[in-house]
Amino acid sequence: MRIPLDRQNPLPLYAQIENHLRQGILSGSLAPETRLPASRQLAQDLGVNRITVENAYSALEADGLVFSRVGSGTYVLPTNPLPKISKTSADASWPLWQQNLPDRGLGARAAVEGMRLSAGHPDPISFAGGVSDSRLFPADDFRKVLQAVMRRDGIDALDYGDRRGYAPLRETIAHILASQGLQISPENVLITAGSQQALALVSQLLLEPGDTILVESPTYSGALDLFRALNFKIISVPVDGQGMQVDLLEKQLQQHHPKLIYTIPNFHNPTGTCLSGARRHQLIVLSDRYNVPILEDDFVGDLRYEGRAQPALKALDPGGRVIHVSTFSKMLMPGLRVGFLVADGPVYDSLVKFKRVNDLATSGLIQRALEDYVTVGRYQAHLRRSSGIFHKRRDAMLVAIQRHLPVGIQIDPPQGGLFLWMKLPQNLSADALLPLAISEGVDFMPGSGFFLEEADGLNWLRLNFVVHTEEKIEDGIKRLGRAVKRLQSIS
Amino acid sequence: MRIPLDRQNPLPLYAQIENHLRQGILSGSLAPETRLPASRQLAQDLGVNRITVENAYSALEADGLVFSRVGSGTYVLPTNPLPKISKTSADASWPLWQQNLPDRGLGARAAVEGMRLSAGHPDPISFAGGVSDSRLFPADDFRKVLQAVMRRDGIDALDYGDRRGYAPLRETIAHILASQGLQISPENVLITAGSQQALALVSQLLLEPGDTILVESPTYSGALDLFRALNFKIISVPVDGQGMQVDLLEKQLQQHHPKLIYTIPNFHNPTGTCLSGARRHQLIVLSDRYNVPILEDDFVGDLRYEGRAQPALKALDPGGRVIHVSTFSKMLMPGLRVGFLVADGPVYDSLVKFKRVNDLATSGLIQRALEDYVTVGRYQAHLRRSSGIFHKRRDAMLVAIQRHLPVGIQIDPPQGGLFLWMKLPQNLSADALLPLAISEGVDFMPGSGFFLEEADGLNWLRLNFVVHTEEKIEDGIKRLGRAVKRLQSIS
Repeated sequence: MRIPLDRQNPLPLYAQIENHLRQGILSGSLAPETRLPASRQLAQDLGVNRITVENAYSALEADGLVFSRVGSGTYVLPTNPLPKISKTSADASWPLWQQNLPDRGLGARAAVEGMRLSAGHPDPISFAGGVSDSRLFPADDFRKVLQAVMRRDGIDALDYGDRRGYAPLRETIAHILASQGLQISPENVLITAGSQQALALVSQLLLEPGDTILVESPTYSGALDLFRALNFKIISVPVDGQGMQVDLLEKQLQQHHPKLIYTIPNFHNPTGTCLSGARRHQLIVLSDRYNVPILEDDFVGDLRYEGRAQPALKALDPGGRVIHVSTFSKMLMPGLRVGFLVADGPVYDSLVKFKRVNDLATSGLIQRALEDYVTVGRYQAHLRRSSGIFHKRRDAMLVAIQRHLPVGIQIDPPQGGLFLWMKLPQNLSADALLPLAISEGVDFMPGSGFFLEEADGLNWLRLNFVVHTEEKIEDGIKRLGRAVKRLQSIS
Repeated sequence: MRIPLDRQNPLPLYAQIENHLRQGILSGSLAPETRLPASRQLAQDLGVNRITVENAYSALEADGLVFSRVGSGTYVLPTNPLPKISKTSADASWPLWQQNLPDRGLGARAAVEGMRLSAGHPDPISFAGGVSDSRLFPADDFRKVLQAVMRRDGIDALDYGDRRGYAPLRETIAHILASQGLQISPENVLITAGSQQALALVSQLLLEPGDTILVESPTYSGALDLFRALNFKIISVPVDGQGMQVDLLEKQLQQHHPKLIYTIPNFHNPTGTCLSGARRHQLIVLSDRYNVPILEDDFVGDLRYEGRAQPALKALDPGGRVIHVSTFSKMLMPGLRVGFLVADGPVYDSLVKFKRVNDLATSGLIQRALEDYVTVGRYQAHLRRSSGIFHKRRDAMLVAIQRHLPVGIQIDPPQGGLFLWMKLPQNLSADALLPLAISEGVDFMPGSGFFLEEADGLNWLRLNFVVHTEEKIEDGIKRLGRAVKRLQSIS
């Protein structure tokens, strides 16, 4: 044990030790049953006389804070812990550098988040989430797989593995992508801590603070938060029913010379639209002409319920133009925190090394379990099953909206993915709607968070239509309808 | 399935589909047993006539690449896959931005790494590793705990949890730190993907490229790699037997105004030294006077075998000066990838948010299992047991060095930790020694990687003394002795 002692302090050493331990026990940070070091040991650790430690211990024992089991040592006794002292609250005594921390947009939309957390309804229904329905994932099978892997690999399952990710899992990913029409080599796959880390690695490797990144407007709020936190200059190209308006892209490339184009070509977050085939080819051409890499976020690319599929941008890449990012979080389970990127050319090796300096590696255990569980056939079956269910849920939400929401609502039914993007009538504000909705027991993601200029999204909101059963969807949208009518009545 | 089709291409569509699938099957990326989409489905996906798809399928079936099970669909057949085409090799056709990627020091020491990988000895003994002996960790108990957690929490164990980390685990960490003499609140703990991510988050939040960071010389090579990759200006203060030479620090602070001081005060990597008590107080005072935060890397702070323990810098922190980083990787298992940082003041909240934009969260499953397994008592017992074993191994290595290495070797026996830092006699170069050592079947970490100026470390090498049994240590050091003698004979 390493107790701070001040030999200049007039307070005797035994008292300093006693006070330190007393404070720990009363504050609860020294838990009951914690074994204090043997007095000889602590005396040696602290370079004091053994008697000094014994005096401190017996003072504590006299106050009933510790007790000693003969031959086994001194143990902390249960006590009524004082409330924990958290130092995170604002405080003038913080050093100057703490009072002037860079904001980096990290405070963004705290209000909205806070509001969401304080939902008080007995049975709230949230359409705000960004993930799919994890109840569809057979947790029990996965438990058995974890068992099998630990039995099979023992301690190896818990060691650093290949820094690019567990090789058999990269093989499986290559096979799954091929079954989706994207043929790549496992040598081009890098396993990451979810797709979010992939976005962070790529953008931080290719850009420095002050550099310009081009995104769609609107776009995934988690990407905006990331790019703001990294102090990038962010410019945008609007999205329409065909995805990014690539015809407006060239002018931006000429004017601002962005270092990276971030796009979500399939079932775009939040709008749910898909980039048309013609625009995909155009995008690749522009990326070539202006020497700009493309970061393709394909977070639910294969979750299509109807309509014509377009090839991944990566499948149109003549080589080294597109970095393709995807994840198992949406299709399977968020908590796995396993995503991946596909890159070719020198940038792949740089990304592997950059990942390494950032967190050394991603948990090998989860990767092995995932590899053991996810065969191509199983993945395809899970995908078919989920698509069938989500298709019905999308339709259920469209019907419920027709039934319960006032005329003037604008929606463009998505052909797949997770999200339905809705515009409120009469310039009603989604931010104003949220508290009313929450009081009705329903929750959504206001549009403002998905725009560079939050005002641009004021009338928009995003609904996750895959996460609840059709019954809950009907109920939730009915509540939303009530909230909208209340807002109309007071507007 | 999303197959790229080019309607301008004179090649008929059925042939384009056939070629795409053929290439996938022959390259092996389309795995045997993969189920191709039903022809109706694929026709709809691609917006072509169903006959077109059926023509493509029957062409492939005629060539024995696929077969159709009546009523169940078309499946890929096993074939002799061609060698995978990896696009990572150098290639003039890469876009310009790929040919001019920022190096960011990510290429550093590739040669040495490469050499290590190509060890050809039947029974190599490596002292190069940076982790402790994971065989001491009861993998079987941990397997059972994983089971229990999955049974108890089901799917919840696999969802995003509290972004600061699983609350009960943060409690446990606070208790463990208290048992080590550092009293903090769980509200000040942030769980990270190993301590490496903690270093990355803190340094990236507080510094921008071009900003100056102050480190010890030598220091942890993984930190140097990280700071180089982030394009920081790196300055250093030398380490002696008492740790960082704090008396030389003030001049550096005045001249270069670093934004952060990175230090490893306990069982320093690579030298194994501990910062003296007086210098710890001095360091806090200077951090205050010059308004510089301290990043304390306490990766094995409690792994002491003898001598007097010093309080963690965080324990001397009047509030908000020190960010304390530690990990379970060294004491328990690297593959867990669970570390943590302790910070107070506004910077804590910023770090929580910055972690979130970087990877959303760290796997909840591992956190829950770890919390379930690691009680304070269990941790203390594991620590005592490991310390006993590692103490013996350290002594075994010291004895073996006396026995097998020529006079003129310089070592300063560490009082704890994992590493022994050795200087070769007669200015022998550790980089030159490495290939000879590897041919003898022993491995170590050359000193050059731990210095800003690699030349400063040329005569030094780092030995991990905890990872092998005393017998293996004896054998390995004997091999090292042979290698040194060979180097002497040719020098």
